Amino acid sequence: MPGPTECAPYQELKNLLREAATLGSVGALVSWDQETYMPSAAGAHRSEQAALLSGLVHERKTSPRVGDLLAECESEPALRESEGAAANIREMRRDYDRAVRVPTELVSELARVGSLAQDVWKEARGKSDFAMFAPWLDRVMGLTRRKAEFLMATMPPGAELYDALLDEYEPGMTAAQIQATFTPLKVQLSGLVQAVAGSGHTVDVSVTKVQVPAARQHQLGTLVLGAMGFDLRAGRLDTTAHPFCSGIAPGDTRLTTRYTERGGFLEPLYGTMHEGGHGLYEQNLPKGDEFGLPSSEAVSLGIHESQSRMWENFVGRSRAFWQWALPKAKELFSPALDTCTLDQIHTAANQVSPSYIRVEADEATYNLHIMMRFELERAMIAGNLATGDLPGHWNDRFKQSFGLEVPDARRGCLQDVHWSFGLIGYFPTYTLGNLYAAQMWEKINADLPGLDDQMSRGDFSGLRSWLVENVHRHGRRYRAADLCRRITGRSLESGPLVRHLQGKVKATYGV
Amino acid sequence: MPGPTECAPYQELKNLLREAATLGSVGALVSWDQETYMPSAAGAHRSEQAALLSGLVHERKTSPRVGDLLAECESEPALRESEGAAANIREMRRDYDRAVRVPTELVSELARVGSLAQDVWKEARGKSDFAMFAPWLDRVMGLTRRKAEFLMATMPPGAELYDALLDEYEPGMTAAQIQATFTPLKVQLSGLVQAVAGSGHTVDVSVTKVQVPAARQHQLGTLVLGAMGFDLRAGRLDTTAHPFCSGIAPGDTRLTTRYTERGGFLEPLYGTMHEGGHGLYEQNLPKGDEFGLPSSEAVSLGIHESQSRMWENFVGRSRAFWQWALPKAKELFSPALDTCTLDQIHTAANQVSPSYIRVEADEATYNLHIMMRFELERAMIAGNLATGDLPGHWNDRFKQSFGLEVPDARRGCLQDVHWSFGLIGYFPTYTLGNLYAAQMWEKINADLPGLDDQMSRGDFSGLRSWLVENVHRHGRRYRAADLCRRITGRSLESGPLVRHLQGKVKATYGV
Repeated sequence: MPGPTECAPYQELKNLLREAATLGSVGALVSWDQETYMPSAAGAHRSEQAALLSGLVHERKTSPRVGDLLAECESEPALRESEGAAANIREMRRDYDRAVRVPTELVSELARVGSLAQDVWKEARGKSDFAMFAPWLDRVMGLTRRKAEFLMATMPPGAELYDALLDEYEPGMTAAQIQATFTPLKVQLSGLVQAVAGSGHTVDVSVTKVQVPAARQHQLGTLVLGAMGFDLRAGRLDTTAHPFCSGIAPGDTRLTTRYTERGGFLEPLYGTMHEGGHGLYEQNLPKGDEFGLPSSEAVSLGIHESQSRMWENFVGRSRAFWQWALPKAKELFSPALDTCTLDQIHTAANQVSPSYIRVEADEATYNLHIMMRFELERAMIAGNLATGDLPGHWNDRFKQSFGLEVPDARRGCLQDVHWSFGLIGYFPTYTLGNLYAAQMWEKINADLPGLDDQMSRGDFSGLRSWLVENVHRHGRRYRAADLCRRITGRSLESGPLVRHLQGKVKATYGV
Repeated sequence: MPGPTECAPYQELKNLLREAATLGSVGALVSWDQETYMPSAAGAHRSEQAALLSGLVHERKTSPRVGDLLAECESEPALRESEGAAANIREMRRDYDRAVRVPTELVSELARVGSLAQDVWKEARGKSDFAMFAPWLDRVMGLTRRKAEFLMATMPPGAELYDALLDEYEPGMTAAQIQATFTPLKVQLSGLVQAVAGSGHTVDVSVTKVQVPAARQHQLGTLVLGAMGFDLRAGRLDTTAHPFCSGIAPGDTRLTTRYTERGGFLEPLYGTMHEGGHGLYEQNLPKGDEFGLPSSEAVSLGIHESQSRMWENFVGRSRAFWQWALPKAKELFSPALDTCTLDQIHTAANQVSPSYIRVEADEATYNLHIMMRFELERAMIAGNLATGDLPGHWNDRFKQSFGLEVPDARRGCLQDVHWSFGLIGYFPTYTLGNLYAAQMWEKINADLPGLDDQMSRGDFSGLRSWLVENVHRHGRRYRAADLCRRITGRSLESGPLVRHLQGKVKATYGV
């Protein structure tokens, strides 16, 4: 007997969305290539390719036929009774209602300008020249604000413009909710950072300065990815200026990291594990027959980030991880780590120390970076902060939060790629990810009592299975808040992250 | 005063074709990625991407709107009087009339099956297992024959199926014309090869066995490409199993070569120069405002190949080239070539010796490889040779032409990628390229009396300018036969190539 999803309108809808997703996967490849191997002179035409593809995907997602089929599916009782199909229809409705509000021309223009602005950003960042980037930031912000204005029609009463953007990355979340979570967290994190500074305790971080050839670092990264369960026959690891993960297509998940000349091997390794965490999620989403349906997609960026942060921080900075990984690193990097002890590397990996660059920040101060960006971008979208005034505001806030003077724009407001693309509302999902990860981690440790022991032997299969079972395989069946409650029995809260960081600081700094 | 091409139908047509070409450029990138960096598990979805993109490009090129606009342009007297516009309209008409004959479904299916078959071919070639590839070859041949049947409606009376395919790559050329050129050429080349074999003269080819790390070879290749004038800011050089050049998009021309473990550095260098010759043509086609118009495209594959073969053989195997390049190679490869003399390397680069692999063949026997493939594929398309019987026929012909027993399919009928893609009618253009190159080379030497002297100093600017001026900048303004007459004052003939090879054999073998 055919199941309810065998009915004609559902099948046709599925085929249409699969085609849109296939075009989207081409766009993702084009974008990956721009970051990795594209010759510099190709930038102008690349923006035409990006604009054309974005427009074609948008046209397909918003075609009247999709709307008609969706309505047919919604009126089909058998589909409503199938939990999987009902969740897909609920999420397709959401996507459709949002997409149809935004004109295709605006989508194409954002892709075109974003592609060009990104190349300008790269150059401006290299030269630490904010004035060069400023007019492009202004254009991107203007276009993004227009997009938000169109999307406001889908938002509940009382929503602000920023919410309409945030909703793209973290469905259902609002700026006010984030502010309510961030405000007390900021107080606790600042207290923690001050306690560390006041402890008089300094940490031996000499191991973080050990220089290792990039090829050897790549070997270690590949070995760790393999142990994590990332399938390199269905993925890659390349190097870029800004590490990222792109779940391009079924069987094609690509990670990047960067190997620094001066910065030692820890930061690149954590970059690799971070992107590897994203990559595991992408590889375990059900992208076979369901590719293009919401059930093959990630819940939200916050949940996505919980996966990357978990592998980077909760696994990668643990003593158990280094029990397994240090001998591997010693062998590959010989003789560079010959005298390094487990204590030394574990302590160095857990130092807390304010620094300029977000992606190089320690686990505690990282969230202060995010809070600052959230407040600044929210103000820019609301029209309370002119893009030209950004560097001054950035530097003032940075001084307040970190007690440091920003020396140049490269280490200040030009450090991140996001705004050049028009990714506004994206930053807070990083800290949401840390919160989700900490809350899940407590449950994981309750569910898997032997986890530490397994990790110390390089066996991550229990953890990976738990993540596949509880998070990855569901796609978008549950919204982030529901998934969190379903897994942990509680709503998202800051207690677990604060407890985790306090424990870490206690162990490392004795305060 | 606006020129004739400012008129509305011409502009709209130009915009439509630019969009089709932009989508085509995305398809080219997707295809380049499949050869270079794609993870193996991505193959199945990649074939969906390729099929979708091919179908979209075909739909755009064959849309009724294009037909209407073309008819409007044809009835516009001012456009007919502009030589550039008239040539574009003539070529657009040709492209449109051919394209509309082939159903979009068949175009997509060929792209899909070709993409899958190519992955099977790679594996089958690695295992030297023809039986594994056979069913896919059969599918590709069947689809290609169907395409040829549709295209027959555009062909003059008396044409054979093969002509309809050949016409795609070498417009206006027929199998009968090729056979008429190849038959006497084969006699002369076979005579030359026999004379060499009978001369009793052996050549010191020890330098061709010198092993050099791939990274150093890459440095030499990059240096030579730079001297040739290939712009690496608008291109790349990567490594693949099968070297190729893809003029992906404006500002984006990508070359590949392969560095062999055992085979020395000469073959990879000639691979690089060969693809560099293609690349220079692509980089100098007028792809700015005219991208998508025939004026931005290459005349034919034969003319394209004349560019690659000229740099590989007429430049790269010359004594003058090595006067400049040997000291560079000695420095980069030190101490591997310390004792190598100019005579040694020049002689080794010009040996004539039958071998199994086409892309590794010497300048003289190369054409015998091509003739064999031409005859076999022509027979397969005509239905006179079943795909299952290919290995036997291949091996028999090879024995006849080269006097060698083919040891396995990897060194026999599985060596080339072309048939897996459905590229039938493509092979003869390689020998046409050699013929065009030789005929142009005589004219170039008459026009540029100081060329040898310039080349011995690493100055290729005079040659490059000549090629840009006489070939590259014209795009498809002249058909290949007209371009040949325009440049050399004569129709294509085999005399120059035969004279060139005779001179080479005389110098190297004294016969």
